[in-house]
Amino acid sequence: MPVYTVSHVSNIRICVVMVGLPARGKSFISQRIVRYLSWLSIKAKSFNVGNYRREKKSHPNAEFFDSHNEDGLKIRKEAAVEAVKDMMKFFQDELGVVAILDATNSTKERRDWILKLCRENSIEPMFLESWCDDDSIITKNIMDVKTSSPDYLGQDPELAAKDFIKRISKYKETYEPLEVETNKDLTFIKLINVSEQVIINKIETYLESRIVYYVMNLHIKPRSIYLSRHGESMYNLEGKIGGDADLSERGWKYAQKLPELVKKVLKSEEHDDYDDDDDTDIKLTVWTSTLKRTQQTASYLPYDKLQWKALDELDAGACDGLTYEEIELQFPQDFKERDENKYEYRYRGGESYRDVVIRLEPIIMELELQENILIITHQAILRCIYAYFMNIPQEESPWMSIPLHTLIKLEPRAFKTIVERIKADIPAVSTYKEKGTSQLGEIEDINNKSKNLITGAPLR
Amino acid sequence: MPVYTVSHVSNIRICVVMVGLPARGKSFISQRIVRYLSWLSIKAKSFNVGNYRREKKSHPNAEFFDSHNEDGLKIRKEAAVEAVKDMMKFFQDELGVVAILDATNSTKERRDWILKLCRENSIEPMFLESWCDDDSIITKNIMDVKTSSPDYLGQDPELAAKDFIKRISKYKETYEPLEVETNKDLTFIKLINVSEQVIINKIETYLESRIVYYVMNLHIKPRSIYLSRHGESMYNLEGKIGGDADLSERGWKYAQKLPELVKKVLKSEEHDDYDDDDDTDIKLTVWTSTLKRTQQTASYLPYDKLQWKALDELDAGACDGLTYEEIELQFPQDFKERDENKYEYRYRGGESYRDVVIRLEPIIMELELQENILIITHQAILRCIYAYFMNIPQEESPWMSIPLHTLIKLEPRAFKTIVERIKADIPAVSTYKEKGTSQLGEIEDINNKSKNLITGAPLR
Repeated sequence: MPVYTVSHVSNIRICVVMVGLPARGKSFISQRIVRYLSWLSIKAKSFNVGNYRREKKSHPNAEFFDSHNEDGLKIRKEAAVEAVKDMMKFFQDELGVVAILDATNSTKERRDWILKLCRENSIEPMFLESWCDDDSIITKNIMDVKTSSPDYLGQDPELAAKDFIKRISKYKETYEPLEVETNKDLTFIKLINVSEQVIINKIETYLESRIVYYVMNLHIKPRSIYLSRHGESMYNLEGKIGGDADLSERGWKYAQKLPELVKKVLKSEEHDDYDDDDDTDIKLTVWTSTLKRTQQTASYLPYDKLQWKALDELDAGACDGLTYEEIELQFPQDFKERDENKYEYRYRGGESYRDVVIRLEPIIMELELQENILIITHQAILRCIYAYFMNIPQEESPWMSIPLHTLIKLEPRAFKTIVERIKADIPAVSTYKEKGTSQLGEIEDINNKSKNLITGAPLR
Repeated sequence: MPVYTVSHVSNIRICVVMVGLPARGKSFISQRIVRYLSWLSIKAKSFNVGNYRREKKSHPNAEFFDSHNEDGLKIRKEAAVEAVKDMMKFFQDELGVVAILDATNSTKERRDWILKLCRENSIEPMFLESWCDDDSIITKNIMDVKTSSPDYLGQDPELAAKDFIKRISKYKETYEPLEVETNKDLTFIKLINVSEQVIINKIETYLESRIVYYVMNLHIKPRSIYLSRHGESMYNLEGKIGGDADLSERGWKYAQKLPELVKKVLKSEEHDDYDDDDDTDIKLTVWTSTLKRTQQTASYLPYDKLQWKALDELDAGACDGLTYEEIELQFPQDFKERDENKYEYRYRGGESYRDVVIRLEPIIMELELQENILIITHQAILRCIYAYFMNIPQEESPWMSIPLHTLIKLEPRAFKTIVERIKADIPAVSTYKEKGTSQLGEIEDINNKSKNLITGAPLR
């Protein structure tokens, strides 16, 4: 029997129908929802109608989107039909739970068509409109599109921006926003200027309410998240897992060096986005677990600190305090099972990675709302947090290498998260165990093999 | 250093300013928010201006609330001033975090006055309007008031209802609802017909966003929550704590009898509120922990079942599998410390009650949204869930007795939760340890001492 995460989602199928003019962040919101739900092992996928349209018409100019352009209308409708067809396949063949129809869906007629299809197929429709009249947000989105949209690939960015603004005005001619009065029977969320104002109508199921809460907490202010494992511990030296050991001598050295590393990255941040003042004005808060090794690692940092039990290391239950060799000897069957499905395997009396993800969910929610945070925690916990930001499939995340004595900087952008690794240059043992062995890597050696960590998996 | 729960709330002070006509559920919402935050150890208190007014004028008729009644206006303003004064004391002397000003606050003038006071005192104002035009909801609220309000104590209920309706119409004459346009600079939530539609404006902090999410999930449909500990386990027989033991022979008997007990309470439910059909139509879902003893207890129940890791017993860490006598011998200092502050004491490598509350928070949130649920879990977990519904202070909750082989029915009503205990009449050991001893009670004996469980603490 599976252990349920956010909610039991059996028999629930939700179609999130995006609504809004171009450059209103619809794809951004769609991708974030998919990332969040996938991280929680809820099968979710976004269907971008623009991608289907591009297969028929790859570089349209604004005239293509004119409501009197018969050819344009036909191609755009065909693209929508194909996206919806694939969406139905996703529900039926792949047992999808949440599909997102990422398109403008800007007329009542188009929305009624989707509504009817959903009702005929026992799919709950949930409309999500992004409405925006804040010029600074719109301009920023236009700037993103002109450089990143495949529609304008290889074109002069200034001409692209001009054409895109014209395209928006074409859509405006026929745009019918969701109306609180006339649409009061629909399940919908209307976001006004990101989440300055949010109107929520007829949200009834738990999963819908989770999506609403997640979307409400999204913000687009620039910020960074810093991650670090605790410094090398006495248990690390002995190859033991779990426990509540003190730092080793080298671990303490890392703790002493960390303030300098942090200051350096914060400084570079400041020069990027803020004014050129010499003193750093960036507010940072440090989160640790309740275990000594993370608090000792944070002890020299001159910032506000918070302890979270939810950041404690994965509980190894009966294996707590053992080395991998001892586990292989004492629990050979468990050792094998864990290697075969590391994400689902739950230590006797302890936790699985899936269990950790569930207890980290409030941390992720709070991280979305916060600005600059430095998290000092443990290998398995960092893998889960990293997997969320980098959109790494859960079956891969338990195998990522996250070396000791390394500060990781994550910068969430609209469609990707930028990663930077800052090594402290203080040696440490490797705690990375490859599949099928009970041996740990050589000092420092394995760190260089961590492909995932260096490149990051692209956003899907 | 404290371990933080929902969020670090240092230096944050929020005043939730209720807005709305009489009979719009303002006090209901206020008390629920206070109960939720208190359960999370966030200091919260509701200040009901009506209570202050009653000290000056105990049984006013509708004319008292006329906007031309000078005497009435004076007394009502004085009451508001006194409530606000006490609220300021709560922030300053008691280090309160969230205060709720429970009154109609139905004019712009009154709200501007509160806004000014908040700003002068570095308190974040958050307006929460309950707007309602659904006659069935209003009528239900009027019926509650006419029988329960101290304003109409000892009066004929029909005359009371008439006067109260007149009072509402007096308020309507001067009522100025929150307006999306003119109030767009305020932080506010506007609930329309409970939570059919919710408008959220300028919610910025994490604590505000938690309050919004909680209020969004409240519903007023009648439902019941059923609680049971697992049947007696082999560990219970030996007086051991923790572990993952099987049920004892008597535990299995309880599991076999449980379907009959559940059917009986569901039937009585049906006769109360539903039509007189013989077949039970009430949908029930059973939640268990991931431990064998809860799943074995649920094994004969013919309902949908869900496993939650978050419902696992409090982790006793190094003491897992020991008896209280062994703990006293092996960890005498810990044994004493736990008795002195059972809520905060964290087992070595394990959890405290506070830790359990944090991991139960998503369960409580989902419970608020769900209808009928039967939870089969463990002693410490049930204490925490019970404390939430019965508003029991966290320092008392770890000492409540929750006997084995007993089904508990909780019926959340507007201002209280009704409790019923159904004993299975199958003997079981007592697992209740009184303060200052390592001895458990006699079989069945201690159960009768459980005052809290029988009466329930009143809502504060």
